[in-house]
Amino acid sequence: MAAEMEIICVGNELLIGKTLNTNASWMAKRSTSLGVMVKRITVVGDDVEEIGVVVAEALKRKPQFVITTGGLGPTFDDKTLEGIAKALKRNVEVDDKALGMVKEKYDAFAKEGRIERAELTSPRVKMAKLPKGAKPLNNPTGTAPAALMKIRGTILIALPGVPSEMEAIFEESIVPQLKKESGNAMFFETSIFVDDIMESTLAPLVDRTMHDNEYVYIKSHPKGEENVPHIELHFSLTSKDGKNARTKLGKAILQVSELIEKKGGKIRAPKKSQ
Amino acid sequence: MAAEMEIICVGNELLIGKTLNTNASWMAKRSTSLGVMVKRITVVGDDVEEIGVVVAEALKRKPQFVITTGGLGPTFDDKTLEGIAKALKRNVEVDDKALGMVKEKYDAFAKEGRIERAELTSPRVKMAKLPKGAKPLNNPTGTAPAALMKIRGTILIALPGVPSEMEAIFEESIVPQLKKESGNAMFFETSIFVDDIMESTLAPLVDRTMHDNEYVYIKSHPKGEENVPHIELHFSLTSKDGKNARTKLGKAILQVSELIEKKGGKIRAPKKSQ
Repeated sequence: MAAEMEIICVGNELLIGKTLNTNASWMAKRSTSLGVMVKRITVVGDDVEEIGVVVAEALKRKPQFVITTGGLGPTFDDKTLEGIAKALKRNVEVDDKALGMVKEKYDAFAKEGRIERAELTSPRVKMAKLPKGAKPLNNPTGTAPAALMKIRGTILIALPGVPSEMEAIFEESIVPQLKKESGNAMFFETSIFVDDIMESTLAPLVDRTMHDNEYVYIKSHPKGEENVPHIELHFSLTSKDGKNARTKLGKAILQVSELIEKKGGKIRAPKKSQ
Repeated sequence: MAAEMEIICVGNELLIGKTLNTNASWMAKRSTSLGVMVKRITVVGDDVEEIGVVVAEALKRKPQFVITTGGLGPTFDDKTLEGIAKALKRNVEVDDKALGMVKEKYDAFAKEGRIERAELTSPRVKMAKLPKGAKPLNNPTGTAPAALMKIRGTILIALPGVPSEMEAIFEESIVPQLKKESGNAMFFETSIFVDDIMESTLAPLVDRTMHDNEYVYIKSHPKGEENVPHIELHFSLTSKDGKNARTKLGKAILQVSELIEKKGGKIRAPKKSQ
């Protein structure tokens, strides 16, 4: 059984369609590549109650990982840690280690002359207020620390929403844990492109190929415009054995390709293979 | 109170990070522009149980609209309508009107010589299987009909995942209902860009401006790299009165700009205004 993850993205900008959710996509891709299975992505606004409900619901489903992004900064609408505290029925309080991290950043800014004074104003202290018992995680490219909590069998991590900061902390603090949890499984995928056959004609051929090739997942993605059939067939497999995985994918591609050509479809070669 | 919406996106490709969720972003932007408030976006895989749970949870929160995308096609992993039926404790059954819609498409394909026979194979009939009581909606650019259900106070609509099809049905069948529900409210937004001031210094200035300008929502989005402060300040307001909305936004922009300049920040002009 692959380790499971839920992703929670916090921010009104996602709910008004101002910002495309590239964070969710990045984290999903990165986690999947390490053999972790993302089960659900939830987007919610900058609202303590809503965040609390969504986090509590995710924890109830007991995935190994719940990762949130967004809402860790110094402004009034950065509410993720307060929401998480609510879900955990804990208080937020200033964490000494987190405050040290924040202070270090502003001291450096003052030294570089970017701010006049490094004083720890209330919005700056806010970034060091964590749910009781949380462990602050270093933010190598920004000011707000991330936070890690262990809730029964789940590792709950709150990351900032600025993509460069989210990605840096993810690589530094989360990837090692994902690798450990997934036992070094990896995700293998490749696509072929199919022309001149309708998805409804393709469907039973895919069914048969999946039936004959255990563990290989095949999904068709119609890419044509105005009903001119052009379909991506995506093959994937999570495995610890790379050679075996590639052999399995190759066998499935061969079988479905033959079936498709018999029905008059045309195959274009895989674009890339991992 | 603005009409509320939840969006549910179905598809493993979203959970493995293969596909960026542009559908959610498009629907959120379009709905927001019509004065509807998107409260939650949930992404779930091609799994009947999971889809059923997510749909049931959304209906329990009683938004005016629940819109799903993805999973309506002819393949084995197109499971959205089955999942919805599960949530509603109904069966799926072939809908005569939906079957007529599907048949018409394949008859046309056969006439154009794109397929040999227009016969209604099992994967094609599958697209006409709707939860009992659902109303099929015309798909102007694809083959799978969409489906509409009224569940107590909620309008539940299942759209395909192919963006051109989703958008065409949304415009044709959903936009008129959103307009009716929102009473022709509109969403007004504009941004200014602020340099040379840190977000933590900006935070109390935004708080004060929001306090003084009721209904105007201001959110700061850090855009700088490596801690060089460059921040987008996004102002928004939902209103039925365009002139009044623009006046309110202008007043808030003026106030916060003066406060920012007093603190040594620099303002760049709004890029666009709606």
